[in-house]
Amino acid sequence: MTNLPSSLQRAINEFAKLPGIGPRSAQRLVFYMLKRDAVELDAFSQAVEKLKEGVVFCSSCHIMTDVDPCPTCSNPRRDQSLVCVVEESMDAIAIDKPGSFTGVFHVLGGVLNPMEGIGPDKLKIASLESRIKNHELGIKEVIIATNPTLEGETTAMHVSRVLKNQFPELKLTRIARGLPMGGDLEYADEITLSRAMEGRRDY
Amino acid sequence: MTNLPSSLQRAINEFAKLPGIGPRSAQRLVFYMLKRDAVELDAFSQAVEKLKEGVVFCSSCHIMTDVDPCPTCSNPRRDQSLVCVVEESMDAIAIDKPGSFTGVFHVLGGVLNPMEGIGPDKLKIASLESRIKNHELGIKEVIIATNPTLEGETTAMHVSRVLKNQFPELKLTRIARGLPMGGDLEYADEITLSRAMEGRRDY
Repeated sequence: MTNLPSSLQRAINEFAKLPGIGPRSAQRLVFYMLKRDAVELDAFSQAVEKLKEGVVFCSSCHIMTDVDPCPTCSNPRRDQSLVCVVEESMDAIAIDKPGSFTGVFHVLGGVLNPMEGIGPDKLKIASLESRIKNHELGIKEVIIATNPTLEGETTAMHVSRVLKNQFPELKLTRIARGLPMGGDLEYADEITLSRAMEGRRDY
Repeated sequence: MTNLPSSLQRAINEFAKLPGIGPRSAQRLVFYMLKRDAVELDAFSQAVEKLKEGVVFCSSCHIMTDVDPCPTCSNPRRDQSLVCVVEESMDAIAIDKPGSFTGVFHVLGGVLNPMEGIGPDKLKIASLESRIKNHELGIKEVIIATNPTLEGETTAMHVSRVLKNQFPELKLTRIARGLPMGGDLEYADEITLSRAMEGRRDY
């Protein structure tokens, strides 16, 4: 049997471990890299090797960042009284992208998942409570923006209950669920449709 | 604006340079890697860095390999009189996979492409002629197995003409083109269909 050089096969095996990349795609990627020069290969391998270097988590909002506190938490022009609770750092970055959100974030670091042993103590919920208790920050509203999935909704429910009990004065909201822009009523799933109807607003 | 740590952004940029990987997929891959430990990250980056290490080209058939001559060319149990001409090393590996091909290969290293300045001198055609001239090898048949694309067909035509002129005794064949297994007549393109008809065989 004709085999690939071992260094190529090793690289293919490594690429094939990545999610969504099968052996065929891995092969294609490695053959593409083979055509790149040593400088480019080095840039790539260095970027992977140093991936975690300098990555810290903001001690206030737990977002992945280069500096602690993160630029959002230390920015005096952001509304520190408005906190958007998300599952992961990427969610915060996505919410921040349109530029319309002026508040700050709180990254839970995951979702409740009893099957995988992830209970409330594994998420940054206690730290959220401390932030709200800290009157210097003056938090007035908490928007829960976990994903509209089973785990995300369960987590949203849990966090909202904890906060309601402890801080009855706090304004507590949930990000709207409904039809996505460019979506098609005909192809929307039933849950999205019923949430879109429930969430209807007056003109 | 909330930004990713610079080391992450750099890795995302590197992944996004790969073919078929957009910024979203790159982000997903990097976040997946972020959850792997240092040993795994190192294995990946080393595999990329050392990609080209030890890769040589067989001086006889020009396939990418670990040793020269390659295991196929030096294997006494392979039929050295039967040579399959392919575009790239990967094509040889694909043809060898089913295990039914018993001959050896000749990798052209590409296809004729006048637009990109790839003429016959850029391909390993002269080296194929020398192999056939070498009576010790005793080559009896050459199967041309370039891809059924415009460039592949042009290259096949060119190689077949060169060999026919020089070696009128040589058996020269072209790999069959027709309907792929599991294919559907209804959805086959016209060229495939007409080739399949032309290539029909008696029962």
